[in-house]
Amino acid sequence: MKIGIVGGTGDIGEGMTLRLSPKHDVIVGSREEAKAIATCDTCREALHERDQECSLIGGSNQRAVDEADIVILAIPFKHVIPILKALTGFEGKIVVSPVNPIERTTHFSYAPPPEGSAAMMIKGLLPPDATVCAAFNNIAAEKWRALDEELDYSVAVCCDDDSAKHTVMEIVNSVSRLRAYDAGPLRAASVVESVTPLLLNIARFNRLKDVGIRFV
Amino acid sequence: MKIGIVGGTGDIGEGMTLRLSPKHDVIVGSREEAKAIATCDTCREALHERDQECSLIGGSNQRAVDEADIVILAIPFKHVIPILKALTGFEGKIVVSPVNPIERTTHFSYAPPPEGSAAMMIKGLLPPDATVCAAFNNIAAEKWRALDEELDYSVAVCCDDDSAKHTVMEIVNSVSRLRAYDAGPLRAASVVESVTPLLLNIARFNRLKDVGIRFV
Repeated sequence: MKIGIVGGTGDIGEGMTLRLSPKHDVIVGSREEAKAIATCDTCREALHERDQECSLIGGSNQRAVDEADIVILAIPFKHVIPILKALTGFEGKIVVSPVNPIERTTHFSYAPPPEGSAAMMIKGLLPPDATVCAAFNNIAAEKWRALDEELDYSVAVCCDDDSAKHTVMEIVNSVSRLRAYDAGPLRAASVVESVTPLLLNIARFNRLKDVGIRFV
Repeated sequence: MKIGIVGGTGDIGEGMTLRLSPKHDVIVGSREEAKAIATCDTCREALHERDQECSLIGGSNQRAVDEADIVILAIPFKHVIPILKALTGFEGKIVVSPVNPIERTTHFSYAPPPEGSAAMMIKGLLPPDATVCAAFNNIAAEKWRALDEELDYSVAVCCDDDSAKHTVMEIVNSVSRLRAYDAGPLRAASVVESVTPLLLNIARFNRLKDVGIRFV
């Protein structure tokens, strides 16, 4: 299974590249191809220093879609609509949304679009035979990048297609100590996405950094 | 500090009584006083069998409000309005809401009232000098009652008053291995309450029971 990371040069995209490319073939996508190639070089170097092999190529976001079976949208909520409108070829792909619509005032709150969640909005923007999965919503970018630390978290996965959900849960379980949990249909993604503003509040009001979650 | 539990004879109320009465003076309230007294007898017996002392009296919900400094509303969301409309005397009290507005279809989802959360709705139903705190939202009733197991969870606490928040966090930390976290102002309670439908989905779709949460 080839994994394409749209927005693969952002904080979370680079972290995902570091964690996924030793296990899977990864295509790092970016709006600027040169940036994607530079990110691949940085990641390859960091992994080689730790004696880890990896399978990595950098290119445009469109190439990350075209060449992958599974496309991860590692982009902020506010960029989802313009980026998806500029891309084609999602037919038959599994599309993973780690996207969280969040507002910041005196605290962080969940600010979903009219569709109810980022995941449901993304489903509406893609062709009907693309399969959207919400996953990886509640892991901080810094933790993805901290290669010398284990990622010891629970990951809730929402999807309407059992086979795609199973595939994504296997990818989750292939990374560090992440444990995937079936969190129901895609419509249930709102309560997964809304954990992220909670974790940001917990970090902020308790002077912690990069708080994650475990189901126990 | 005296703790009154409105709805103290329900599943979660009885569990809270078992866990809180060895550490604090607890007044168990019920719409039927006889039921409250029976619950106190049951709890006292269960605690004595485990060589634990407790401070417990049973009475009406109104008595649980009148005699307590801190009132916990251990009632389902759908009963909040009728029960609060029937009670008086909340002036100057700390009112703890573990209430979660949840809808069940093919999955569990968060169904907040127009105020944005159960906690904010409760604030609007009480006199202005009552201080509402959201706490204990994400712990299953069965776990409260399982006296021979530790409660090893994180508890998010939301409140607009620092002193009341501190008091409630100390009560949280007095119970088993619960760890209180400041989760910001009361307006941030929606992202705390919405963890509960997520935990119910995690339990349901992974065939688990009574799933809880830890911030790590």
